[in-house]
Amino acid sequence: MSEKLDQLKEKLGEVSDIGRAASVLGWDQQVNMPPGGSEARGRQLATLSKIAQEKFITDEVGRLIDDLKQEFDGADTDEAAMIRVAARDYDKAKRVPPEFIAEQAIVTSKAFEAWREAKGKSDFSIFQPHLERVVELVEKYISFFPPTDHPYDVLLDDYEHGMKTADVKAIFDGLRPKQVKLIKAIASSKHVKDDFLYKKYNEQKLMDFGVQVITKFGYDWSRGRQDKAPHPFETTFSVNDVRITTRFEADNPLAMLFSTMHESGHAMYEQGINPAYERTPIAGGTSLAVHESQSRMWENLVGRSLPFWEHFYPAFKKTFPTQLDGVSLKSFYKAINTVEPSLIRVNADEATYNLHIMLRLELEIGIVEGLIAIKDLPEIWSSKMQEYLGITPPDDAKGVLQDIHWSNGAIGYFSTYALGNLISAQLWEKINKDIRNLDDQIRKGDFSELLGWLRQNIHRHGQKYEPQKLVERVTGSKITPEPYIRYLTKKYSEIYGL
Amino acid sequence: MSEKLDQLKEKLGEVSDIGRAASVLGWDQQVNMPPGGSEARGRQLATLSKIAQEKFITDEVGRLIDDLKQEFDGADTDEAAMIRVAARDYDKAKRVPPEFIAEQAIVTSKAFEAWREAKGKSDFSIFQPHLERVVELVEKYISFFPPTDHPYDVLLDDYEHGMKTADVKAIFDGLRPKQVKLIKAIASSKHVKDDFLYKKYNEQKLMDFGVQVITKFGYDWSRGRQDKAPHPFETTFSVNDVRITTRFEADNPLAMLFSTMHESGHAMYEQGINPAYERTPIAGGTSLAVHESQSRMWENLVGRSLPFWEHFYPAFKKTFPTQLDGVSLKSFYKAINTVEPSLIRVNADEATYNLHIMLRLELEIGIVEGLIAIKDLPEIWSSKMQEYLGITPPDDAKGVLQDIHWSNGAIGYFSTYALGNLISAQLWEKINKDIRNLDDQIRKGDFSELLGWLRQNIHRHGQKYEPQKLVERVTGSKITPEPYIRYLTKKYSEIYGL
Repeated sequence: MSEKLDQLKEKLGEVSDIGRAASVLGWDQQVNMPPGGSEARGRQLATLSKIAQEKFITDEVGRLIDDLKQEFDGADTDEAAMIRVAARDYDKAKRVPPEFIAEQAIVTSKAFEAWREAKGKSDFSIFQPHLERVVELVEKYISFFPPTDHPYDVLLDDYEHGMKTADVKAIFDGLRPKQVKLIKAIASSKHVKDDFLYKKYNEQKLMDFGVQVITKFGYDWSRGRQDKAPHPFETTFSVNDVRITTRFEADNPLAMLFSTMHESGHAMYEQGINPAYERTPIAGGTSLAVHESQSRMWENLVGRSLPFWEHFYPAFKKTFPTQLDGVSLKSFYKAINTVEPSLIRVNADEATYNLHIMLRLELEIGIVEGLIAIKDLPEIWSSKMQEYLGITPPDDAKGVLQDIHWSNGAIGYFSTYALGNLISAQLWEKINKDIRNLDDQIRKGDFSELLGWLRQNIHRHGQKYEPQKLVERVTGSKITPEPYIRYLTKKYSEIYGL
Repeated sequence: MSEKLDQLKEKLGEVSDIGRAASVLGWDQQVNMPPGGSEARGRQLATLSKIAQEKFITDEVGRLIDDLKQEFDGADTDEAAMIRVAARDYDKAKRVPPEFIAEQAIVTSKAFEAWREAKGKSDFSIFQPHLERVVELVEKYISFFPPTDHPYDVLLDDYEHGMKTADVKAIFDGLRPKQVKLIKAIASSKHVKDDFLYKKYNEQKLMDFGVQVITKFGYDWSRGRQDKAPHPFETTFSVNDVRITTRFEADNPLAMLFSTMHESGHAMYEQGINPAYERTPIAGGTSLAVHESQSRMWENLVGRSLPFWEHFYPAFKKTFPTQLDGVSLKSFYKAINTVEPSLIRVNADEATYNLHIMLRLELEIGIVEGLIAIKDLPEIWSSKMQEYLGITPPDDAKGVLQDIHWSNGAIGYFSTYALGNLISAQLWEKINKDIRNLDDQIRKGDFSELLGWLRQNIHRHGQKYEPQKLVERVTGSKITPEPYIRYLTKKYSEIYGL
């Protein structure tokens, strides 16, 4: 058996090498590439992705997986996990015909262009026919798979393996009323002063400060780097080369700092995975939601906490003495935690963010069930925004057209963001039981025990455990909204004196 | 036939995509990669190179080439050239067994490490056994090919297709006595003052100046970029993404400027190739020597000329007023053209450079003929340095260990550097016949007609013509040392008053 296992690992190792080579090309495209390079780069990426697929779905790989599956079935070993994940991915890949993938690439490429134009002109009708084609293909995609409890399960499973539509709905149903109630309570409280956050901040100084912060977190620069790019993201070329990007927005300067912490959370997860998993199917984080739990934890539970700023605020104020003249630690802390219903998901605060997600999930399920027509989306969007957040988008650009995901065919993705928030708070409660004086440590700028805990309990496992099993294994409970609600309620009760 | 041609182009297009993806990974390795990334990067590059080879030497590609070769044989079309180059590369690739390539990769990887250590400790004995293994493999490599006039022909052909050992020897035999005579004449002349070149220069200002210069040359920044790297080089990801690197050496600051011009010469060649050749075997420059003729032309025939500095010196002096205080244009021009026998090839001036190459060629031929034992190399090196340049290396690091090439298995490469020098002067004579007032144009900082000529006569053809055929086609003569000797004699007679 070990010979077959070695054979399979070698085949999948090559597939992994190609995928990671493609990641390098993708990173370069965002970070360095001169404008002229894009056409050839697109072709090079298409070729790599085609070859990776060809090399993966061979009959030989199928036979090796089948033979090994019987041998390793049910074992709690790394090898069994590799074969399980390989079998899952192989089965999915074999079900989807290459012609479909090619068609989808063409449709989504056009849909992306249409979306960009539609957003620019704030005119949904430009995007509408393309989104209709995208949805047709999504329905066709679902038809390639065996029947599930709900057709949306097929989509969800691609982004959060094992998650069911009914489960997400139940989780969100438990969350929604409490979160809405909290926001209403905050809305009737005194407004927090935060104008000093939107003064002119020096980009380089902010960037340097972010570097200092994530260095203290434990981001390993000998195995990573940070560059500027149009959008912040994390990308992995190997466990020893995990890079992040950042950007500066003049009208929201501190976003650079928080998104740096966010991306470092993704990156430290990838840097912490067992190096023995390299080039195997269980390298990389176990799911989008668990990944997001790590980025959100460093950005919000750590980076927007009072202990964190008790440590960093003196240095921060020294770096920006004019901007923060007369601003006390408490005022600053309150300001960076302002809650305010807003139109744009990516700018939403911790208290309102999940409602943006729930809205999208409901629309996606409605579309897949055939109950919502694409042409009605702008209107439904507006009414739901009013219902959940009490505001109405002035136009499509600030409403239904704001996110890129649907134009890429990524229907089923959004809920992982909210699930990530929930998991982050669930882990946080457990961490604070295991590390009694965590706040004191953070107050001293010492994050080593926190990172050590995450490495030990989450990071090193890579994809060895299914996401929900991992959460249950660590916290003793399935994904649940209670800890997140407790976290928000405590935090905002203090800030807003509820 | 056009269907078969399309099939072949598609297959070779994929091979090209993979090769260029590998170039992106290689560039990133030199320019950006954190230290941790190297192990995985090595594996990713090995996988890409293996797959490119697999995809190239299939029986199907072989059949397509055979069928098309008969159809297109002898035609002077782009298609015929593509098939000719594909057939040549295919034949070579098929002759070398994959196990040999794997063995060579291991041997040269160890040899490279040993060379680095040996050079650091200036101890040839550390490198000797590794170089012996490298040479054994080189001999084995030669045995894969049909007999040639001289066994070294096989090696030469890989770097300069169609070039024969006897031809290079004949060219160098014609060059050597005249070049030695010239150097002797210079040596007995008055020393040129050049201490101001080695003062402290600001790195960023030098870099900015280099950018200005190559922008005027016509390097297209919308299809390229420049970064810092441990060694200057040019790399091509597509005709529309051709990048260069540069470096700063505190003890030889102006080298940054000249190497930027040098690399821009390579890059403008690649940027000027017919875009219709993309993803075909005739994309890219036609040979190392012709490539070097372009880089050397911009660096030396343009960049170290008096008209060039008549244009740029006022701005340069304004940028470095302290360093160049009291230094006239003439003094500066003489200083950057100082001739002095020196130990290190890469630092050699235009007059002595080729002698460094001839020394290496003689050693390589002696090794391949079995007349020179590896253990004797340091001694032979020293005696030849004394014979040609009148100096003796104080140690191995400044002698036989200075170049990386042999550790990589690149035996047969060196002469392309000297051939590039010769071709550059040959082209220059022709250019100055075709563009009568070229000096005046350069004096005005106008390089457009020069670049236009190079595009028209050299660049756009890519690999359509064999290197020697291209030179003959353009200049009416085979590669010959006369123009280079004329160029050197004229230039240095003026500078040194010979």
